[in-house]
Amino acid sequence: MEYSMAWLSYHRLPFYEGQEYFRKIYVQGEDEITGTAVYELCRGAEEMLGIRTEVIKWPELSGQDGKDRQDKGIYLLTDSNGPVGGGYRITEENGKIHIAAAESEGLLYGSFDLLRQVQRGFPLNGLNRLKLPDNPLRMLNHWDNMDGSIERGYSGNSLFFRSNTVMVEERTRDYARLAASVGINGVVINNVNVIGKATRLIIGEYAEALKRLGDVFAKYGIRLYLSLNFAAPMELGGLDTADPEAEKVRAWWQEQMKETFCNLPSLGGFLVKADSEGRPGPFTYGRTQAQGANMLAEAAKPYGGIIIWRCFVYNCTQDWRDRKTDRARSAYDYFMPLDGKFEKNVILQIKNGPMDFQVREPVSPLFGSLRNTNQLLEVQIAQEYTGQQRHVCYLIPQFKEVLGFHTYCREEGDTVADIISGRSFSHRICGMAAVANTGSDTNWTGHDLAAANWFGFGRLAFDSSLSAEEIAREWCECTFGTETQVAHAVCKILMMSWPAYEKYTSPLGIGWMVTPNNHYGPNVDGYEYDRWGTYHRADHLGIGVERGKAGTGYTQTYLEPNASLYEEIEKCPEELLLFFHHIPYTYRLKSNKTLIQHIYDSHFEGVEDVEEMVTLWQGLKGKIPDEVFERVKTRMEQQLEHSREWRDQINSYFYRKSFILDEKGRTIY
Amino acid sequence: MEYSMAWLSYHRLPFYEGQEYFRKIYVQGEDEITGTAVYELCRGAEEMLGIRTEVIKWPELSGQDGKDRQDKGIYLLTDSNGPVGGGYRITEENGKIHIAAAESEGLLYGSFDLLRQVQRGFPLNGLNRLKLPDNPLRMLNHWDNMDGSIERGYSGNSLFFRSNTVMVEERTRDYARLAASVGINGVVINNVNVIGKATRLIIGEYAEALKRLGDVFAKYGIRLYLSLNFAAPMELGGLDTADPEAEKVRAWWQEQMKETFCNLPSLGGFLVKADSEGRPGPFTYGRTQAQGANMLAEAAKPYGGIIIWRCFVYNCTQDWRDRKTDRARSAYDYFMPLDGKFEKNVILQIKNGPMDFQVREPVSPLFGSLRNTNQLLEVQIAQEYTGQQRHVCYLIPQFKEVLGFHTYCREEGDTVADIISGRSFSHRICGMAAVANTGSDTNWTGHDLAAANWFGFGRLAFDSSLSAEEIAREWCECTFGTETQVAHAVCKILMMSWPAYEKYTSPLGIGWMVTPNNHYGPNVDGYEYDRWGTYHRADHLGIGVERGKAGTGYTQTYLEPNASLYEEIEKCPEELLLFFHHIPYTYRLKSNKTLIQHIYDSHFEGVEDVEEMVTLWQGLKGKIPDEVFERVKTRMEQQLEHSREWRDQINSYFYRKSFILDEKGRTIY
Repeated sequence: MEYSMAWLSYHRLPFYEGQEYFRKIYVQGEDEITGTAVYELCRGAEEMLGIRTEVIKWPELSGQDGKDRQDKGIYLLTDSNGPVGGGYRITEENGKIHIAAAESEGLLYGSFDLLRQVQRGFPLNGLNRLKLPDNPLRMLNHWDNMDGSIERGYSGNSLFFRSNTVMVEERTRDYARLAASVGINGVVINNVNVIGKATRLIIGEYAEALKRLGDVFAKYGIRLYLSLNFAAPMELGGLDTADPEAEKVRAWWQEQMKETFCNLPSLGGFLVKADSEGRPGPFTYGRTQAQGANMLAEAAKPYGGIIIWRCFVYNCTQDWRDRKTDRARSAYDYFMPLDGKFEKNVILQIKNGPMDFQVREPVSPLFGSLRNTNQLLEVQIAQEYTGQQRHVCYLIPQFKEVLGFHTYCREEGDTVADIISGRSFSHRICGMAAVANTGSDTNWTGHDLAAANWFGFGRLAFDSSLSAEEIAREWCECTFGTETQVAHAVCKILMMSWPAYEKYTSPLGIGWMVTPNNHYGPNVDGYEYDRWGTYHRADHLGIGVERGKAGTGYTQTYLEPNASLYEEIEKCPEELLLFFHHIPYTYRLKSNKTLIQHIYDSHFEGVEDVEEMVTLWQGLKGKIPDEVFERVKTRMEQQLEHSREWRDQINSYFYRKSFILDEKGRTIY
Repeated sequence: MEYSMAWLSYHRLPFYEGQEYFRKIYVQGEDEITGTAVYELCRGAEEMLGIRTEVIKWPELSGQDGKDRQDKGIYLLTDSNGPVGGGYRITEENGKIHIAAAESEGLLYGSFDLLRQVQRGFPLNGLNRLKLPDNPLRMLNHWDNMDGSIERGYSGNSLFFRSNTVMVEERTRDYARLAASVGINGVVINNVNVIGKATRLIIGEYAEALKRLGDVFAKYGIRLYLSLNFAAPMELGGLDTADPEAEKVRAWWQEQMKETFCNLPSLGGFLVKADSEGRPGPFTYGRTQAQGANMLAEAAKPYGGIIIWRCFVYNCTQDWRDRKTDRARSAYDYFMPLDGKFEKNVILQIKNGPMDFQVREPVSPLFGSLRNTNQLLEVQIAQEYTGQQRHVCYLIPQFKEVLGFHTYCREEGDTVADIISGRSFSHRICGMAAVANTGSDTNWTGHDLAAANWFGFGRLAFDSSLSAEEIAREWCECTFGTETQVAHAVCKILMMSWPAYEKYTSPLGIGWMVTPNNHYGPNVDGYEYDRWGTYHRADHLGIGVERGKAGTGYTQTYLEPNASLYEEIEKCPEELLLFFHHIPYTYRLKSNKTLIQHIYDSHFEGVEDVEEMVTLWQGLKGKIPDEVFERVKTRMEQQLEHSREWRDQINSYFYRKSFILDEKGRTIY
C-alpha cells in the first residue's frame, strides 16, 4: 500500500517569491551526507516549485571566497570555522543563500530547515539563522521485535523487521528522511526487551543486512544502535554465567564486540535494559549496575561504541499491601550511589517520569543529583498510557515542562534541558531519547495527528528553546499547508489535547487507572491490588500515595527547595498532589473546590474539550485531503466516546466510594 | 509421557474374598459393547486379583435358563425383560453373579459397578443391585479447538485434536474407558465456539478420522457429537446467507446432513451455540431461536440426529450504566415464549446458573416453566470460575443442590432432577451435560483431586440419588485405595472445598469478582464497568444487584412460592441475597452479623478452611504415591497463598469503600 511522506509530503506552491534561489546549488564537499542535502534540496525544489535545479560542483569554493561569488543560488559551504556538532548558519544576501557548517550533518539540517521555510511560505530574503543543536544525542528507540511485531506499537508492524529478517527497503530510506529532517541522529531499531532471535543481531548472521540498513541511515546522518541482551554470553556463547566480573564473560564480550564492530563499523553502540521486568542483569550475580555497564563499555570502547544503560530498574513483584516500597524512588536508590562510577562511554537513560510514561508525573530526581554521569532523558511518543495513538495527545507541552524544570543543582543553568544538553556539567555524550511511535501504517503513526509527536520530539531535541505552539504550527503547516483556518484549528486541537487527556483520565498525578497489560482504557482498580508498584490507595475518605517523610520519603530525593515544596501539601503543585500525598476528598484546592468536586468537574470538562476538538476538526472538511480527514474524524469520534467512558467510570468510582454528591447534580452512575 | 488411569488405576489387592467369582465369565451376546464389558472384567480381575479369567461363550444361555446353571462365575445376561436404557441388575447367589440388562450398555455399566465393589473391597455375596440411569443423556462437552488448545482448559492440550487433525490413539480409548466407567454416554468433542478449521468437521475431509474416533467411543457405549457452526452454509457452502427460513439454506443443510450422517452413521447429533457472544445465529435474520433449531432438526431427523441448542443467549455488549437489562433473565426471556415450539429432536441445553458457572447462583427459572421442551442441564466441571483446577473445588455438592431444587411446577416430582430425567413431563431425550475438565496432562485433570469432579459428574448423572459424600468416597477409594485415614482426609478436603471457595471469593451469590478474560484470581471491579452484564453495584453503603420487582424483575420469572421467596429480602436465602437484592452493609443477617461483618468473617474463615485442607493433605505423606502427593501439595500451597490474596483484596475493597471496621480488629489493608 502506498504510504504518505507525512510532513515531507511536499505540496506544489502556486506562487513562491523565493523560487529563484533554487535554480542553482553550488556544492563544495563530496561526502555522502552533503550529497543527501543536495538531493533533498533538489527534490524539494522540484516537488514544491516545479524547478529542476542545476547542481554545480565547485571544488575551489572555500568559506570566505564563496561569499564573493556573484552567481545567485544556494551555496552549501563546509567551513571549519562554521557551526559545529550539526549546527548550521543560513544567510541570504543579494540573491545568494549560504548554508554553512563545520560538518556535513549541519548542511543537511540546514537544508531541511530551508525547505521548511519554503513549505511554510516564508520569504527567504535577508534570512539569517544560526542553529546549534541543544542535545548531542537525539535518539529514537524502537521497541520492534524480529517477528515484525512492536511492543506498545499502535501503528502497524515493524519498519525494520519481518519474519526474523532485517528489512532494507525504499521505505527504510523514507523513514531516515523523516527522522533526519527533524534532527534525529541515532536510532535503536530493536526492542529493549531482547526476545526471540534479537539476541543474535550482534553476531555475523545479520551483519550484512544491518550494514545495509546502517548505510541507509548514515546517508542521513543517523547512527544505528542495537538493544543488547545482557545474557548473550549464555544464550549465544554457551557460558554458564553472564557475571560481569567473570573473566570468561569479559573475554567473551571483548571478542564479540570486536566481531560486531568489525562487521558494522558505523554502529553507534548499544541500549541495555538490565535487571528490569524480568530481563537479566548484573543483580543476578550480586553486581552493581555500574559493574554491568562498565564491563560492556570497556569492551565497546576500542571501537568508539557507547553503552546506553536504562535506569528503569525496580521491584516488579511488589506486594500491594506493602506501603513502604516505592517504585518512584527505585531508580534514584539504585543509581544515585553510583554517580561518577560509570565509564566515560556509558550513558544512563533516565525514564520520565520516575514511574513510567504517565500523563503527569514529577521529573526524575536523578536529574540534578547525578553530576558525574552522562545522562539521556527518555520520553515516549508511542502514547502507551496517553491514548495509544487513538486519542489525540500532543506531548510536546509535557516534554517542555520537563525540560524547563529547575532541579536547583546549580545557581543557574540547572534545568533538565541544561543537564541533558551537557551545559550544566560539561558532559559530551548526552541528550534525549524517545520511544518511537512509527510503524507500517500508511501514515506512519496510525493517527495522522500523532505524527506531530514524532516531528515535535525531533525538533525539540534539536532546539529545546522552541515552544510547543511553534512546533505544532511548524508541523501543521508542513503537513497540511498554510491555510490559516487549518493551522489555527489543528494547532488548537493539538494544544488542547494533553490537558484534555489529563482531565478525563486519572486525576492530579496519580496515574495508572488503566486496564492492566494493554494499558488502554479506564480501570480504576486495575493496578491497585497488583504487583507493579502502581497504586492509588483510594478509600472512602481520600486518595493518593503518601510519598512525604511520613510515607515513602520520596519527596526527600529532590534537591531543595523542591524537596520542601513537594513535602508540604499546601505548597505542592496541585497537578501532582495525589502523586505525593494522600488527600481527603474534602480538601480544598486553590480554586476553593474540594478535591472530589475537582475530580467531577475536570472529568466533565475533559469530555467537553474533546467535543470541542471534534467540532474543530469537523470544520476542516474539504480543507484536508478526504482520506486523512475521514481517518482522523473516525478516530476522534472514538476518542469522544472513549473519553465519556473514562469520565463515567472515574466519576462513578469516586462517587460510589466517597458518597459525596456532585455539587452540580450531573449524572454519575 | 506416561499417563495415569485415574480411578481405573487398579491396585493389586493382597487378599479379596470375592476373587473366585472372577475365574470364569459366561457371556451370551456377541456385540461389541458386551465384548467391552468382558474385556473390562478380565482386565480388572488381572490387575486387582492377579487372575486370568476364562471367558465362556454360551450361545444357548438365556435369561431364565442361565440362572439354573450350577457353575460358579460371572454371567452377563442380555435379558429383554431386564432393566432397560442402560440399567442393570447385579445379583449374587450360590457363587454365581448375574449381571442382567436389556441392552449391552447395561452389562457394561454393571460390570464397571461390580469392579468398583472389588476396588472398594466390598463383599460380593448376597449382592442385589438394581440400577436404572436417572438421565437418558449423560454428556461431556469438550471446548477443544482443532489447533489442540482448549478454551477454558486447565489440564493441558486437547485429547482429540492436534495441529488441525483428529487424533485416535491408545489414550482415546482410555478416555472412553474412564468416561464409560461412570456412565457417560455422549461426548461433544469440539468447542461450542466453532473456530478455525472446526467448521469443516461436518464435511468429508475429517470423516475417516472421526469415524475411527466414533468407533472407539461406540465400543464403550458413547455417542460422538459435534459442535456445529450455524454460519456453515456461508463458510462452507458459499451461500450469501445462513437464514434458517431461506430455501437454499434449508436445502444446503439437508444435503450436508445427508453427507455427514452417511459418513458417520453413529453420530449422535450436534451441539449449537448460536447468537451468543459473537457466534452467528437466527437473530441475524430476524428469526427466533426455534426457527434456527428446528431447521437443523428437520435436516438431521431422517438420520436419528438430535440438535442440542444452548440457551446461553444474552446481550454481551451491555452498557454498565444500564440497570434494567439483566443477563440473568435473558435465557428465560428468549426461550420461555418458545416452549412447545421446538421439534421433537431438539433439546435445549440450559446453563446453570442463569448467569454463568459462578460458585453460587440460583437455578435457572427455565426449569419448571418450560414444560413442552426437551431439556438438558449444563454444568461445568472445568472450574472456570471456581479455581481452574488449581484450587480444590469439588462441585458435586453444588450440582446436588441444583438437582434437588423445587421448581413447584407440579405437586410433586417437581425438582430439577425430576425435570431433566424426563419424569416430570415425560420427556424422552433429556439429561445432564458438563463442560469437561480433561486434557493431555498425565493425570488427565491437572489437579489430581479435580478428577473427582469428572468421576462425580458421571456418577451423579447416572444416579442422582447418590449423595456428594458417597460419590467422594467412591472416587477416593477407587483412586487411592481403601485405607481409612486416606479416605477420611480426602473426602473431608473434597467436602470442605466448595464451601471454602465460596467463603473466600465473592460473597453471597454476587459472583464475578474475577480478573477479566482469564477469570482467575480476584479483581473486585474487574467486570463492574464492562459490557458483559456482570455487575455487583457496590457503593459506600451497600452492594448487590436489585433483581426484585423494583429492579430488573428477575425474581418474577420463578414459579410461586419461589418468586415471593426471592422477592422478599427477609425470606430470600442468604447465600443468594446479593444476587437478588442491593443490601446495606449494616443489614443484619440471620446470624445477627451485619453484612459487612459477614464478608470479613467468611473471608477469614475461608482461608482458615484452606489451611485445614493443607494440613489434612500433609498428613497423608507416605500414604499416597509420592508423585501425586507432591503434585497436590504444591497446588494446595498455591491455593492457600491465593486464598489469602482473595481474602485481602475482597476485605480491603469493602473496608476502603464502606469504612466500617472489622469488629475483630484483624488486618485489613
